[in-house]
Amino acid sequence: MPKSPIVETNHQVMFYDSDAAGVVHNIAYLRYIEKNRTLLGVELGLDYKEMSKEQTYGAVIRTEIDYKSPALLGDEIMVRGWLAEIGKVRFWCAFEIIRTEDQSKLVSCKQQLALVKMPGGKPLRLPAEWREGFNNG
Amino acid sequence: MPKSPIVETNHQVMFYDSDAAGVVHNIAYLRYIEKNRTLLGVELGLDYKEMSKEQTYGAVIRTEIDYKSPALLGDEIMVRGWLAEIGKVRFWCAFEIIRTEDQSKLVSCKQQLALVKMPGGKPLRLPAEWREGFNNG
Amino acid sequence: MPKSPIVETNHQVMFYDSDAAGVVHNIAYLRYIEKNRTLLGVELGLDYKEMSKEQTYGAVIRTEIDYKSPALLGDEIMVRGWLAEIGKVRFWCAFEIIRTEDQSKLVSCKQQLALVKMPGGKPLRLPAEWREGFNNG
Amino acid sequence: MPKSPIVETNHQVMFYDSDAAGVVHNIAYLRYIEKNRTLLGVELGLDYKEMSKEQTYGAVIRTEIDYKSPALLGDEIMVRGWLAEIGKVRFWCAFEIIRTEDQSKLVSCKQQLALVKMPGGKPLRLPAEWREGFNNG
Repeated sequence: MPKSPIVETNHQVMFYDSDAAGVVHNIAYLRYIEKNRTLLGVELGLDYKEMSKEQTYGAVIRTEIDYKSPALLGDEIMVRGWLAEIGKVRFWCAFEIIRTEDQSKLVSCKQQLALVKMPGGKPLRLPAEWREGFNNG
Repeated sequence: MPKSPIVETNHQVMFYDSDAAGVVHNIAYLRYIEKNRTLLGVELGLDYKEMSKEQTYGAVIRTEIDYKSPALLGDEIMVRGWLAEIGKVRFWCAFEIIRTEDQSKLVSCKQQLALVKMPGGKPLRLPAEWREGFNNG
Repeated sequence: MPKSPIVETNHQVMFYDSDAAGVVHNIAYLRYIEKNRTLLGVELGLDYKEMSKEQTYGAVIRTEIDYKSPALLGDEIMVRGWLAEIGKVRFWCAFEIIRTEDQSKLVSCKQQLALVKMPGGKPLRLPAEWREGFNNG
Repeated sequence: MPKSPIVETNHQVMFYDSDAAGVVHNIAYLRYIEKNRTLLGVELGLDYKEMSKEQTYGAVIRTEIDYKSPALLGDEIMVRGWLAEIGKVRFWCAFEIIRTEDQSKLVSCKQQLALVKMPGGKPLRLPAEWREGFNNG
């Protein structure tokens, strides 16, 4: 069974997250997810501040996101993120976004990433200990 | 064979589209795509300004986006969008983003949408003539 | 001497806050400030979720912002906001943004606001008790 | 009398520009202004793509922006920008945003900038010919 830290981040929906339809804009959820993913990376030993000094970055290769129910202005929401799958150079993170008040699930999302070295964008092998730890977990 | 208008929109990559990795941020492409999709809707007879007066909106239900190659600050890019599939209440749009200079494909994306009536978010049947025109096209 | 609650909000600089110059983008600070201002409003009795049900909003009339020193990817920063001045229909909030690590001041900002009733945007008189409490404070 | 190119850029207000108050969000106008300013820079000989290869950037030092009347979803708006004042290392740009349909002025804005060399952020002397051309204009 794979093991991953689970990271939970909280937001209160602001005007800049909403749009004229009166709900959170579909793009804003991806900002919430990015914050969660970045802190998940930190838990996994990927310090984005340090990495960026060496021009190494976690690059999103694919996003799949399902919008089930909209969040509204002022809602308290929680993003839960974890590492879902690890290959040699690519890995998947999974996320769900939940409204705190009624625990309804608003969004599910999966993102495939690679660690890339800039400039050029060459993908790096994922840390062996990290991969093994996960796959033997 | 389905018929759809094809809408092309152009952007020049600005600082606010880029991030500290020196490339366009993964979320910014979805802003480009939203503009394209909105104008595609106008071509299809969905005037978003008029619709919003009746609190009817095109709601994104699912996004799938593949990031193939990054755009850079100052790049000229083109988004091409079209209607890919129509059901009774849901439809898919497809998009590709191309760097003008070398015609390289940077991004492919599919989005599933429904027309919803707010507040409440009840999905509306898609216009019959629109669906038939497409499916008989 | 005027009295105001002082609200402090904290952020860790994410990729979406940064740009290709390697620093936080000038617009991103205004998102940090908006969150602070919204929570300051809550402290002052302006519940933005409730207000928006009555289509009453705090509208920014003017922003003055000075950028002194840039925040960098991964920096921990703190926004401090307070009510600086109250008139009959307009009020000023003031903000400063500080990097936690070295306590350096990155940004100062003032924003003038009014409470407006939408649609139409008619400005409302500010709550008398709020104004008096502040001016007699 | 100073001479400056005048740059006009056009936008159609999208959902991502709007918020739950039903109007364009105060921060979105600054994105419109940044695009205008960037293209104004190009007119003035400051090619931001070339400059960024040498890590030279136009850094915003101060923004003053007055919100007079809100733009609405679907509005066609025009940003007009010009160089307003030049010193040895700092310069001011001025902007106005106008709704095309009724020519009403929605926003006025001034921004003070410097050209800075990163990393470090040392301000550069402005190009002499550029300064003289302007001041003798």
